[in-house]
Amino acid sequence: MAFNSFEEDVTMAEDRYQKGIDKIQELTSSDDDNPTGFMDIGEAFKDIAPDLSKYVVEFAFADIYSRPGIDNKQKVLTTITALVAQGKPQIGMHIKTGLSVGLTPEEIVGCVVHLIPYVGFPSVLNALTVAKEVFAEQGVTVDTSDVE
Amino acid sequence: MAFNSFEEDVTMAEDRYQKGIDKIQELTSSDDDNPTGFMDIGEAFKDIAPDLSKYVVEFAFADIYSRPGIDNKQKVLTTITALVAQGKPQIGMHIKTGLSVGLTPEEIVGCVVHLIPYVGFPSVLNALTVAKEVFAEQGVTVDTSDVE
Amino acid sequence: MAFNSFEEDVTMAEDRYQKGIDKIQELTSSDDDNPTGFMDIGEAFKDIAPDLSKYVVEFAFADIYSRPGIDNKQKVLTTITALVAQGKPQIGMHIKTGLSVGLTPEEIVGCVVHLIPYVGFPSVLNALTVAKEVFAEQGVTVDTSDVE
Amino acid sequence: MAFNSFEEDVTMAEDRYQKGIDKIQELTSSDDDNPTGFMDIGEAFKDIAPDLSKYVVEFAFADIYSRPGIDNKQKVLTTITALVAQGKPQIGMHIKTGLSVGLTPEEIVGCVVHLIPYVGFPSVLNALTVAKEVFAEQGVTVDTSDVE
Amino acid sequence: MAFNSFEEDVTMAEDRYQKGIDKIQELTSSDDDNPTGFMDIGEAFKDIAPDLSKYVVEFAFADIYSRPGIDNKQKVLTTITALVAQGKPQIGMHIKTGLSVGLTPEEIVGCVVHLIPYVGFPSVLNALTVAKEVFAEQGVTVDTSDVE
Amino acid sequence: MAFNSFEEDVTMAEDRYQKGIDKIQELTSSDDDNPTGFMDIGEAFKDIAPDLSKYVVEFAFADIYSRPGIDNKQKVLTTITALVAQGKPQIGMHIKTGLSVGLTPEEIVGCVVHLIPYVGFPSVLNALTVAKEVFAEQGVTVDTSDVE
Repeated sequence: MAFNSFEEDVTMAEDRYQKGIDKIQELTSSDDDNPTGFMDIGEAFKDIAPDLSKYVVEFAFADIYSRPGIDNKQKVLTTITALVAQGKPQIGMHIKTGLSVGLTPEEIVGCVVHLIPYVGFPSVLNALTVAKEVFAEQGVTVDTSDVE
Repeated sequence: MAFNSFEEDVTMAEDRYQKGIDKIQELTSSDDDNPTGFMDIGEAFKDIAPDLSKYVVEFAFADIYSRPGIDNKQKVLTTITALVAQGKPQIGMHIKTGLSVGLTPEEIVGCVVHLIPYVGFPSVLNALTVAKEVFAEQGVTVDTSDVE
Repeated sequence: MAFNSFEEDVTMAEDRYQKGIDKIQELTSSDDDNPTGFMDIGEAFKDIAPDLSKYVVEFAFADIYSRPGIDNKQKVLTTITALVAQGKPQIGMHIKTGLSVGLTPEEIVGCVVHLIPYVGFPSVLNALTVAKEVFAEQGVTVDTSDVE
Repeated sequence: MAFNSFEEDVTMAEDRYQKGIDKIQELTSSDDDNPTGFMDIGEAFKDIAPDLSKYVVEFAFADIYSRPGIDNKQKVLTTITALVAQGKPQIGMHIKTGLSVGLTPEEIVGCVVHLIPYVGFPSVLNALTVAKEVFAEQGVTVDTSDVE
Repeated sequence: MAFNSFEEDVTMAEDRYQKGIDKIQELTSSDDDNPTGFMDIGEAFKDIAPDLSKYVVEFAFADIYSRPGIDNKQKVLTTITALVAQGKPQIGMHIKTGLSVGLTPEEIVGCVVHLIPYVGFPSVLNALTVAKEVFAEQGVTVDTSDVE
Repeated sequence: MAFNSFEEDVTMAEDRYQKGIDKIQELTSSDDDNPTGFMDIGEAFKDIAPDLSKYVVEFAFADIYSRPGIDNKQKVLTTITALVAQGKPQIGMHIKTGLSVGLTPEEIVGCVVHLIPYVGFPSVLNALTVAKEVFAEQGVTVDTSDVE
């Protein structure tokens, strides 16, 4: 790790929370009136763990989601996959993020179906149920001509 | 699902095992002398479950890996993610496949590091240990200038 | 794996989907008007992944459930166990299948309770809640005289 | 293991179920009219697995919860952690037990938030949702002045 | 649960450890010189947790393995399945137990292969590697004529 | 979350990495010549993911391990529990940390044994094998007089 100069450190400290918020806006296509868009950053917990949102925004979004290496579409595809493999209820929110960053519905379904040999049918069927709900809510249809 | 004509069915029956082998060759850049390359299709089990390789080749590779929706690079990224989330020893073989289909080492590391907020540090550290071994074995170096 | 003659291949191709449906009928005691009975083969996803049902029927039921080695009762007991160990919501449907293939309610409960030392109490209590609901729905009572 | 004398054995046999009930009363601060308090010992399953409550009371509470080594507060903290790591719905009941044995709400939240690096954000967010519900139901507030 | 008379309680207290040992002998076909046979009851931990073996013998074997509902073959099949679903290293010891209680190698392999649609290929391939080792060690061969 | 003044931000930026290192020294009783002691902060990955150690030190140790709510002994007990529940190989390093922060070997064993009803025997036996190795390496003996 390259250590930062004093000035860079100041900038980093000021910018880290904002950098995370900016990343969330980029991922959710949200506007400035509702900067975190549909992303759950744990604001519901401000009365029991007010620091939680800071970890979500600064660590998950400013550090990890802003890291180079893979692009936003790959990041969300990877996130969806991890959640399907673990059966977590956050799948829906991240499918929505996937659509927002430009993953096609065919890519999202393709990713989930691809997981059958690795996680088994039940996890995939459960995830597709969620995907179907998100697609209906977002008015998105899937072009299935290639797989019929 | 569109049902196939009789002739298509014949072709499909003949071709399904071959289609899976072709897909494996495409994924592993293997030649015809060793068509399954470094991919473990379960041939070690021919004396206890001789039909297993058929399921691997025909279902995993002819059906699932050949399905449209996501491309080979996305398929392998998704596979690696599922294996990291579950802590399976097959991670190494699929990192090798990733390099073979054109994922850069930066993308593979980027994918694994991206999983920290979803699967925690221990799973990621374990996966990076395997990635490092595969990279060393394959003579691959990672350009880290962007993340230093 | 023994390779098939051309004629066998034709037959296999024609029969694979039907073979899976036949197996489901056998497992669910369903009639020809509703051949898949209460088994969820993923038909709800025909607008987002129309090929999914084909994988369920042809791979899960024609290939795997039709494989010799263990009988139907053992297959369903094994399936229920895997779902209890993973905490999947499909447990109920497979308990229903268990009753249909002749597992007694005592065997189903015996299997779930047997898992306590391997998966812990919470997973077992959650699965018994589902079992109780299925038994009530099916009008099945459990003979508990031996374990009181 | 030290083997018991005949008299000790008799006492142990008589007392094991009672010892478990006593432990549950201690953990839940329940009175004699409702000795198991809010603890689910599986009584709902007396028509399908009447021996289950015995295993819960005698093994989980008389053997394990009564074992020396760690105190009640540590036992419940450990239990909550295991349930968060596995995503089990029993988290709520054991958070209630935690409050009953004297864990502060700050300790319970502190434990759950501490798990982020080991189990990831989604499991922690799901557990905090349950914690928040239990705290509201129990009229408990969290002092967050230290973490704001 | 039916409460026991005083005399039954005495008998139960005296017999519970012995009952567990007897069950282990039955499961492992062990003789009196080595009553626990190849079963790991945690005796390696007598210097750090000397009570552990008691819980294994009395709870796992006297309570759970001795419970009516399913027979020994079903119990071991269920145990193997739970361990495959979780990827635990104890799979080998329980495959050995399976052979000892009369499960055929075809049934053991049949059970593991049956799990592919529920736990995915990697877990099944890992389990078959262990099965193959146990079969080799035990001089057992698998009749594969039906699945070739 | 209270937002920081400009000066606090500067301090925080300068101190965050150091704060994490200080916490690791506190946890591992390490001296300044080897400030991270036996804690694996991912330094082995500096050629493939040089930023990883920064996330470990700054997020896991400066943010999370330094958070008030639970004390160091509770934090390590909670960490060990999460790793036992998931079967991760990092258990040993954190048992070592537990001894370093003052958890007695009886507390560590007590915690692991307490998990039997929640994670099952196999995970607990595997963790005790690691605990035994660490205790031997550290010359630590367990007082078992209370549980014999």
